[in-house]
Amino acid sequence: MLNFTFQNPTHIHFGEGQISVLAKEVPLKARVLLVYGGGSIKANGVYQQVIDALSEHTYFEFSGIEPNPTYDTLMKAQDIIKRENIDYILAVGGGSVVDGAKFIAAAALYEGSSEGNDPWDILAKQQAVTKALPIGAVLTLPATGSESNGNSVVTRDGNKLPFSSPLVRPLFAVLDPNVTLSLSDRQISNGVVDAFIHTIEQYLTYSVNGKVQDRFSEGLLQTLIEEGPKALDPATKENLEVRANIMWSATMALNGLIGAGVPQDWSTHMIGHELTGAFGIDHARTLSIVLPAVMKVRKEQKREKLLQYASRVWQITEGDEDTRIDQAIRLTEEFFQQMQVPTRLSDVNLGSKDIDLLIERLEQHGMTALGEKSDITLAISREILTKAL
Amino acid sequence: MLNFTFQNPTHIHFGEGQISVLAKEVPLKARVLLVYGGGSIKANGVYQQVIDALSEHTYFEFSGIEPNPTYDTLMKAQDIIKRENIDYILAVGGGSVVDGAKFIAAAALYEGSSEGNDPWDILAKQQAVTKALPIGAVLTLPATGSESNGNSVVTRDGNKLPFSSPLVRPLFAVLDPNVTLSLSDRQISNGVVDAFIHTIEQYLTYSVNGKVQDRFSEGLLQTLIEEGPKALDPATKENLEVRANIMWSATMALNGLIGAGVPQDWSTHMIGHELTGAFGIDHARTLSIVLPAVMKVRKEQKREKLLQYASRVWQITEGDEDTRIDQAIRLTEEFFQQMQVPTRLSDVNLGSKDIDLLIERLEQHGMTALGEKSDITLAISREILTKAL
Repeated sequence: MLNFTFQNPTHIHFGEGQISVLAKEVPLKARVLLVYGGGSIKANGVYQQVIDALSEHTYFEFSGIEPNPTYDTLMKAQDIIKRENIDYILAVGGGSVVDGAKFIAAAALYEGSSEGNDPWDILAKQQAVTKALPIGAVLTLPATGSESNGNSVVTRDGNKLPFSSPLVRPLFAVLDPNVTLSLSDRQISNGVVDAFIHTIEQYLTYSVNGKVQDRFSEGLLQTLIEEGPKALDPATKENLEVRANIMWSATMALNGLIGAGVPQDWSTHMIGHELTGAFGIDHARTLSIVLPAVMKVRKEQKREKLLQYASRVWQITEGDEDTRIDQAIRLTEEFFQQMQVPTRLSDVNLGSKDIDLLIERLEQHGMTALGEKSDITLAISREILTKAL
Repeated sequence: MLNFTFQNPTHIHFGEGQISVLAKEVPLKARVLLVYGGGSIKANGVYQQVIDALSEHTYFEFSGIEPNPTYDTLMKAQDIIKRENIDYILAVGGGSVVDGAKFIAAAALYEGSSEGNDPWDILAKQQAVTKALPIGAVLTLPATGSESNGNSVVTRDGNKLPFSSPLVRPLFAVLDPNVTLSLSDRQISNGVVDAFIHTIEQYLTYSVNGKVQDRFSEGLLQTLIEEGPKALDPATKENLEVRANIMWSATMALNGLIGAGVPQDWSTHMIGHELTGAFGIDHARTLSIVLPAVMKVRKEQKREKLLQYASRVWQITEGDEDTRIDQAIRLTEEFFQQMQVPTRLSDVNLGSKDIDLLIERLEQHGMTALGEKSDITLAISREILTKAL
């Protein structure tokens, strides 16, 4: 096991009816900015539950945060923050809304640096976040884990970049599986696949004998493999236990715990971000395209963990090593297909002619040494994308 | 899954050499009381590492906290706390020292109630902790999970009672597996068994379809079964990876995570506490005596989970239900025997004549409705103790 530090102070409120805790969790004195997306929370009743819980609070609203939230949209929130002296951000939505809230919270108190005072520098020039407004979250779409971590991804002019700070980790998160019943199949499948690949990126590297971390990751993968398809099947999709297990898996997949003390790959995400930035493909759908190709191209480097994955997650025990690994990769692809997400660039109408642009963007964003050993060069990323054709 | 709230803000610093973080984690302005046990930390070098890290701090010392820390010992710390205006407690030791530090921290600021102003009322009359000195912990014995939870157990006149408050949860915990190399076999085996049974008490109840929680618990149980015996085997006991896996398992076993959203049994602990209180038997050794008997006596109530335990933790898939359950219980007992702890009252020279006193104590402490459904009456506790003869 590697040395690590780990802390996750986000207060989780899990279960049906928990949105009412907002009344207590958000300080009564706060001047709250309620941020949300396109208004689906009005259709599914979540907005009303939030408003009811905040009946004694002073709050304002900022809506319109889009999937893969953009700098341009998020910066529009700064006006109301200044005008109304907002001192608390309440994010109500999925990972994009929570990610957006984090940028809004950091931008509001960004003091600039020798590089200038554009908050975009937090992402583009990795300038440190030294202050941020406090954030609370009501999660409506289990997927990114953003509700209890300090990570955020923001897009500007086709450039999709991450930043991270403990100062933007939500103080609390409300997870009511009931609110996920109104999600579309596409949202559910994207969320399950996103959480699955978050887990894989912290697991499928090389062994450091982190037995607890490995088994926790395997437990999340198995749970998502079992429960994901049930959330798409008309016979079981309304089952709240299915939704609860998916929701808790997605939070645990990226709250820092399973990645503490073990190597991490994030190459699938970094390559995937370019697919979203350049072609607007849903985040999870870029991952389901890239991951199988990463597994194939990095088979030697990941051999030991691929064999463990085959055995413990897929119960594959027959055949020689290569056969077992190939079967595990095939079952992973079949799981993605069952979850109705693409597994090839051709599935989203992209071809070899599009790879140059993606490699160019990776280079431009400094993504020239990816993976758990920083040895995935641009040439290897090209190989991965070619394998994904 | 049941509704739950979960928060664990303890900052974990895990790995070799991490004791040096004390220099930054303990505020420089603090007036620190370093509390520890019988002086083993001086023999194994931990004390020196702590002192080195605190070279710029103002600190005082309070030692002599015994296993199963007593009220009488702990109250002696109040003099130095008042005299030196102590405002920070640093616990260096195992679960008993950390538990003791929690009582010291709560007692220092206890304001009393209509019941009087004896801090013992926090345990005996379950008076609320409303304030406590901040606590940091350097763990030397992986076992109780006390380093990142709000639980404490204190003994007075043979009465061993628990209390719990988020205010006594350590702000940070240093977990350096290297410091566990100097532990005796008895300390190691007690720690592994304690962590194992903490996990069982949050797992072996009835199913609420908490798939993540179940798999996390199973992962901890499997890890302890694999690594525990290695820490006693001369060929592998110096292996730091073995120690690291045991240490992280023990913390995760009782930091609140695996028990969030699932029913909990604590009957083995509550009956075990009486064995310690009345006869001075090591905590873990009371648990290894009581748990197999609980499994046997509560076989029908725990049938579904016992079958899952047999299948997933012990890979038992052959035979009818009762055969599989009986085999899982037998393997559990064999694991305890391999860990060199007793599994019968007769192993610690107790017999049927001693049961009356234990039942009397359970009654006196209000332990008349134990278990995940509060249906373990005194009569059933007697049956359990009789089965453990």
